[in-house]
Amino acid sequence: MISINKKSPTPVYEQIYESIKNEIANNQRKANEKLPPIRLLAADLMVSNNTIKQAYSQLVAEGYVNNIPGSGYYVEKIDTSFFKKKNNSDTITPLQTNNYEKNNIQIKYNLEYGTINPLEFPVKNWKKAIDLALNYEAATLFSKYGDRDGYDCLRQDIAEHLFVARGVKCSSDQIVIGPSTYVLITQVLILLKKYKSINTYAIENPGYDTIRETMSLLSNKVYDIPVTNTGISIRALSKTDAKVTYVTPSHQFPLGVVMPIGKRQKLLQWAIDNNGYIIEDDYDSELRYNSQPIPSLQSIDQNERVIYLGTLSKAISPALRIGYLVLPKHLCNEFNELFNTFNTNIPELEQHALHYFFESGDLEKHLRKTGKLYKQKHDSLIKELKELLPKDFEIIGTGGGTHFILKNLSGRLTEENMTMLALKQGVKVYPTSRYYFGTQPNNKVMVGFASLSTEDISDVCQRLAVAYK
Amino acid sequence: MISINKKSPTPVYEQIYESIKNEIANNQRKANEKLPPIRLLAADLMVSNNTIKQAYSQLVAEGYVNNIPGSGYYVEKIDTSFFKKKNNSDTITPLQTNNYEKNNIQIKYNLEYGTINPLEFPVKNWKKAIDLALNYEAATLFSKYGDRDGYDCLRQDIAEHLFVARGVKCSSDQIVIGPSTYVLITQVLILLKKYKSINTYAIENPGYDTIRETMSLLSNKVYDIPVTNTGISIRALSKTDAKVTYVTPSHQFPLGVVMPIGKRQKLLQWAIDNNGYIIEDDYDSELRYNSQPIPSLQSIDQNERVIYLGTLSKAISPALRIGYLVLPKHLCNEFNELFNTFNTNIPELEQHALHYFFESGDLEKHLRKTGKLYKQKHDSLIKELKELLPKDFEIIGTGGGTHFILKNLSGRLTEENMTMLALKQGVKVYPTSRYYFGTQPNNKVMVGFASLSTEDISDVCQRLAVAYK
Repeated sequence: MISINKKSPTPVYEQIYESIKNEIANNQRKANEKLPPIRLLAADLMVSNNTIKQAYSQLVAEGYVNNIPGSGYYVEKIDTSFFKKKNNSDTITPLQTNNYEKNNIQIKYNLEYGTINPLEFPVKNWKKAIDLALNYEAATLFSKYGDRDGYDCLRQDIAEHLFVARGVKCSSDQIVIGPSTYVLITQVLILLKKYKSINTYAIENPGYDTIRETMSLLSNKVYDIPVTNTGISIRALSKTDAKVTYVTPSHQFPLGVVMPIGKRQKLLQWAIDNNGYIIEDDYDSELRYNSQPIPSLQSIDQNERVIYLGTLSKAISPALRIGYLVLPKHLCNEFNELFNTFNTNIPELEQHALHYFFESGDLEKHLRKTGKLYKQKHDSLIKELKELLPKDFEIIGTGGGTHFILKNLSGRLTEENMTMLALKQGVKVYPTSRYYFGTQPNNKVMVGFASLSTEDISDVCQRLAVAYK
Repeated sequence: MISINKKSPTPVYEQIYESIKNEIANNQRKANEKLPPIRLLAADLMVSNNTIKQAYSQLVAEGYVNNIPGSGYYVEKIDTSFFKKKNNSDTITPLQTNNYEKNNIQIKYNLEYGTINPLEFPVKNWKKAIDLALNYEAATLFSKYGDRDGYDCLRQDIAEHLFVARGVKCSSDQIVIGPSTYVLITQVLILLKKYKSINTYAIENPGYDTIRETMSLLSNKVYDIPVTNTGISIRALSKTDAKVTYVTPSHQFPLGVVMPIGKRQKLLQWAIDNNGYIIEDDYDSELRYNSQPIPSLQSIDQNERVIYLGTLSKAISPALRIGYLVLPKHLCNEFNELFNTFNTNIPELEQHALHYFFESGDLEKHLRKTGKLYKQKHDSLIKELKELLPKDFEIIGTGGGTHFILKNLSGRLTEENMTMLALKQGVKVYPTSRYYFGTQPNNKVMVGFASLSTEDISDVCQRLAVAYK
């Protein structure tokens, strides 16, 4: 029954194995049936005993056949209905990608938040850093799992950078490097739940939707706290039983308001009074245009209530996938214990390259250059839009970062109107309702300006003026 | 009271800002006190009005001072106790690193599971792939967030690879690329909890400790199911109310047993009967030495009960941080909905390089080469150890992957004894008790052989023979 083709590229033993397997699957060989003895089948097929042995061993390894030493090979009892064809009728909605240009090729200016101008990424210096890592460390770079919390030299770099740039006081032991804010926050929330029995969360409303989603996946007590023009409302926060609150005090996401020092202190006091924690996401703090960056909450916290977060997505590139966490000292041992068996989630090559990028001064150089460039874009955009937009428009959240908000004050235009009207002029701006939890004013759109080139700014502003006139 | 130094590298406005800020922090300027009018202070200090404006604006931005238009600048009410020195007394236990050589320099052979031989990583071809991505795509590679579930070309590569290598039938839409098994499993468990109300888990005992930890962080119902010599005990599993079970059927981790086809079908039947899911972690399936790989559970699943997981950590390098998930079709839309706002966690450069590595055939070449090399190491090690080790030793879990287990049958040696005795001979083997949940036999150590070079194998075996004689 078994036919073989010695000229086939498939090894003979595999042909025999496949053939018998199929016979079993098709019920042509029944349970407990004995297979031909090795020598007999070998003689029949004019192949070596070893070839048959190999085929039988594979059948045994997979459980199709049982070998009773001294007796022979017997077919196992197998439910052959499992071998019937799969039903492939389900359809999957195509994944949403960031590549919306596919659907609309008329967009001339895509003002998406988070995107940078490819020409402004420091390709040459990043290549240099990658090459350094590949050339001098390739021998060991790829051989093992990296340190769980990140490459120690890079953690040292980040600690030093944060001290200078943001007044953050920490040792590199307090730093955990991770691929994204939500992966790091997930770890923090799990830590606080496990060791501090904390599972009531507060988040700014409007706020960073992914973080809210992360919180709601871990707890059903997530409080949405209104944002005033000085940031999260501490009065509203105090009325909840939340023990952890996520804030973006330096440039509230998405509204862009800044929390003044007095309120920062009140927020710290809230954490002390409630034995709670503040997760401070300082996501774009390197980028300030009209004043110096405001000291981080972490830098004025005397009581280890602040868990500090940052990312290189805005400062370098969102495609790097590198962020970091600064834990209060008293949580470090517990973090280490809880995630003892976990491995880092960042490729070693990236981490080592980034270390070279810090060490060479290229990062600082890049930050200086980007800061200047973004300030130019920001200032021209604001200036021209203020001149050109109708009187019922307000520009909010300016002064830092890579985005601001256009707000229609009169109720004449909804965010859908604003999005569609801009699109007709070839400009894509983004609705903000996804950042509102519950009812939302529906009168704001978001403008990300990092990807614009300075030459295009006048054109963009004129198009928006036409759209909203 | 304000003194400035025009020759200092610190801009004058910053000196003024710092000076006033410190006075407020030190209570030298009280709440509601009016600051000197801009023109007066400018005249006093012999600087321009603009310099004072800049300093005041920064103080306003940070909330130290309030500007009442038409009236002037007033000190805000601030709790100055926050500016006192931090207490830095807590000590942090140094982080555990994989770099245990620091503590013990006598180790000649470190048989750590998961580590590979740096000389066997395809440095040249990986560099080539990185260069291709950097040279041809740098312009766009770094400019935005990548597709949430991974680079689409790479997902296509993985789908094709899995079909050929493991019989896994899926479209690239079903694939999610992630940095590690536990990040991906966390997403799966959260998905099943949210959409299927499933939060009872089962895991092999002994089993992969990090996954058990991940499960127990999300639910307090985690059942440890004993492993027999055909894998997880379905009888024990059936006695629980677990709805999701995590298994490593192709090479049980860490014991190395293989689940035969009949039992695979029974496990699938268990999932059907219980409306449950099987998470199949096929972590080292590319590496089989004495038989072909056994078809994956996913490949014989007719009912979309299997969530398939794999990683390139064993096949290429643990330092890449690339793994993948194959979702059953009916869960794809729900996954997309739940994680709609999330971003990929893998750097774009790595993903594009890996795509080139697949496309050029370099990955397949590497897998063939590695497979041969590892088989050599595996076969020699097993052969020599069988000859040299005392009669009360058994070698288990052989035939695939990058590790096996040494078991002391007589009770003469505990895992601590085995570890210490080997260490005295310069060989580091690893205890297995971390993989046992609850009571554990304490008679096994784990030997990872991927990092060994073939020339060293005889020496390693002789040292182990001396250690355990």
